[in-house]
Amino acid sequence: MSLPPLTARAQDIQPFHVMDILARARALEAAGRDIVHMEIGEPDFATAFPIIEAGMQALRAGHTHYTPALGLPALREAIADFYSSRYGVEMAAARIIVTPGASGALLLALATLLGRDDELLLADPGYPCNRHFARFLEARARGIALGPASRYQLTAEAVAAHWQAHTRAVLVASPANPTGTLISSEALRGLYGTISERGGALVVDEIYHGLTYGCDAHTAAAVSDEVFVVNSFSKYFGMTGWRLGWLVAPTAFLPALERLAQNLFLAPSTIAQHAALAAFRPDTLAILEERREAFRQRRDFLVPALRELGFSVPVLPDGAFYVYAGCERFSDDSMALAQRLLEEAGVAVTPGVDFGSHQARHHLRFAYTTGMKRLEEGVARLARILR
Amino acid sequence: MSLPPLTARAQDIQPFHVMDILARARALEAAGRDIVHMEIGEPDFATAFPIIEAGMQALRAGHTHYTPALGLPALREAIADFYSSRYGVEMAAARIIVTPGASGALLLALATLLGRDDELLLADPGYPCNRHFARFLEARARGIALGPASRYQLTAEAVAAHWQAHTRAVLVASPANPTGTLISSEALRGLYGTISERGGALVVDEIYHGLTYGCDAHTAAAVSDEVFVVNSFSKYFGMTGWRLGWLVAPTAFLPALERLAQNLFLAPSTIAQHAALAAFRPDTLAILEERREAFRQRRDFLVPALRELGFSVPVLPDGAFYVYAGCERFSDDSMALAQRLLEEAGVAVTPGVDFGSHQARHHLRFAYTTGMKRLEEGVARLARILR
Repeated sequence: MSLPPLTARAQDIQPFHVMDILARARALEAAGRDIVHMEIGEPDFATAFPIIEAGMQALRAGHTHYTPALGLPALREAIADFYSSRYGVEMAAARIIVTPGASGALLLALATLLGRDDELLLADPGYPCNRHFARFLEARARGIALGPASRYQLTAEAVAAHWQAHTRAVLVASPANPTGTLISSEALRGLYGTISERGGALVVDEIYHGLTYGCDAHTAAAVSDEVFVVNSFSKYFGMTGWRLGWLVAPTAFLPALERLAQNLFLAPSTIAQHAALAAFRPDTLAILEERREAFRQRRDFLVPALRELGFSVPVLPDGAFYVYAGCERFSDDSMALAQRLLEEAGVAVTPGVDFGSHQARHHLRFAYTTGMKRLEEGVARLARILR
Repeated sequence: MSLPPLTARAQDIQPFHVMDILARARALEAAGRDIVHMEIGEPDFATAFPIIEAGMQALRAGHTHYTPALGLPALREAIADFYSSRYGVEMAAARIIVTPGASGALLLALATLLGRDDELLLADPGYPCNRHFARFLEARARGIALGPASRYQLTAEAVAAHWQAHTRAVLVASPANPTGTLISSEALRGLYGTISERGGALVVDEIYHGLTYGCDAHTAAAVSDEVFVVNSFSKYFGMTGWRLGWLVAPTAFLPALERLAQNLFLAPSTIAQHAALAAFRPDTLAILEERREAFRQRRDFLVPALRELGFSVPVLPDGAFYVYAGCERFSDDSMALAQRLLEEAGVAVTPGVDFGSHQARHHLRFAYTTGMKRLEEGVARLARILR
């Protein structure tokens, strides 16, 4: 009498090392210790009030039934309008699929692109869930080692050099997690050309769009109608807990994506969708732009402060809310260093080993998702034990 | 320059035929025609007010950040308490995983059980998404043809007869969609014994629990701590659009399920979880029990009315909100009949072909998710064209 063994899929998908850091931080806090959290990939701001108010109105109005699988038509239109007003890109609302978070968008897109043993190319360092999505689908993710020379971003040349018979798609993120770097429009066009010549698909993660400092990101949707663009209401729009994102997809893939969405999700959250209708209003955007400025100030404090402590930050991050910092001066074991910083300084950070294998033991990710006073406190504590 | 072909997975997952019925119904309505909707698998009631109010309070309190991947501890405790109070089953809250809908629970459970080419046994007729989940995971679903003799439910004997080397799990639903029948505790124990002897897993879909009429369902969680139980806040609790469900899982599988949940979903909706905390309150349950009584009245009207029209309903459905009715007297093409009922009678129903292949062309599913007056109107219209 026994259960079957865990599938190879379930065994291969590893936990995030930062979960151990987080659990230990919570234990220390429960014992009365003060911890500066620089490990958390979520804005500290609560959702902006106009969005919350729209959610409450939807509840009052009894909007609690399913929406269509691809989302409320009005929200798909609002997202299309946003591409027009913010990026000058015109697209049919029919190409926009509202999803349960960007996670849902990525799962749908990759499920239509990656059959068993097909290959996805992505950046190392990169967001760890991405390679796990490929594994989940019985496909393979291959991380390409990248460094400051290419601003940690895949290039057309790197893709061409690594393309194999079973490669089907390339995933890039702009701004990227953990490095915060953008890809230029030109580089995106080069990537798209190289990939489409080989009969592959380009998937671009734009979930940190809006959170760029001193510059604006260009959307890959402008490059071609055949690029898959993943975005989210979580980061710039500050709606993490609502679990809402979207996918811009090539027209030819829409029927299959709709079938998959019907089966996997039925529909995204109705309340979240009604609330998100308020995300594009001028009063909301004004609040979001204030928060963007707060993140810029934090970045502009944290990067030089980390450099002064002895961390290497060879490329200024353009956006997101992370600094991917070389810690080679202090350790060649980023997990051990993260544990030491937590125990000795009360500062929680994410070890580079969560983001791939290339130079991962020589990096830490610092998130500036906490206020300036706390960041200053964190840096002061680090100075005490690292200097 | 071209996109890759759609994956075999995406090609194999077929659309629901009822989507064509629904689209045509909407078109007829847009042209001014009145349609009685008996195709919709969603309660007509909006979410009960105490749950809505709890959602609004959570928004007012700014609960908009991520929760832990497995859900709010307080909600997991509340669900565990519900198993104790409603079923007399004690379980650790740690075994309860809160998910984005029952869909999320099923995807997690099957991802840990079904490797590539592994087999899932399920009932034919049955809910169509279930076999698509297996296909999504590069596994196989095999429907076992079932009829009124076994009340459309899998038996230990049928499972033993169909078990193969690659069979890993068996999925049953109680009450079932589309047939509304329950599985007895004894039958569940028999199924569990047969499956676990063979090293397989039993997954029980209990999402229609609470919606049984003149009887109460027993939970499969009472049979063994090694049964996977899927449930949802959608049906009895009336929270479809919130997208919230749960999985009760064997302890040995929890670490893998947590890793998968972290990667696939990050976390379920925060607002929905806070709202669901009010789902188990006595004032909420009183409302839900009134609605249950309304569903019972509808069933008790609809089943004899359909029989009188000439449909065969050999087994009285115990629960859910469906009648799976034989239409062999009228047609041997359930899709064509569904189209005719829509065009000629203005009544939308779901063709049996959406639920499998066994006798599927001889069945229609009638949902009683609309009020008594509308059901009476629907039956009167059917009488006019079928008699």
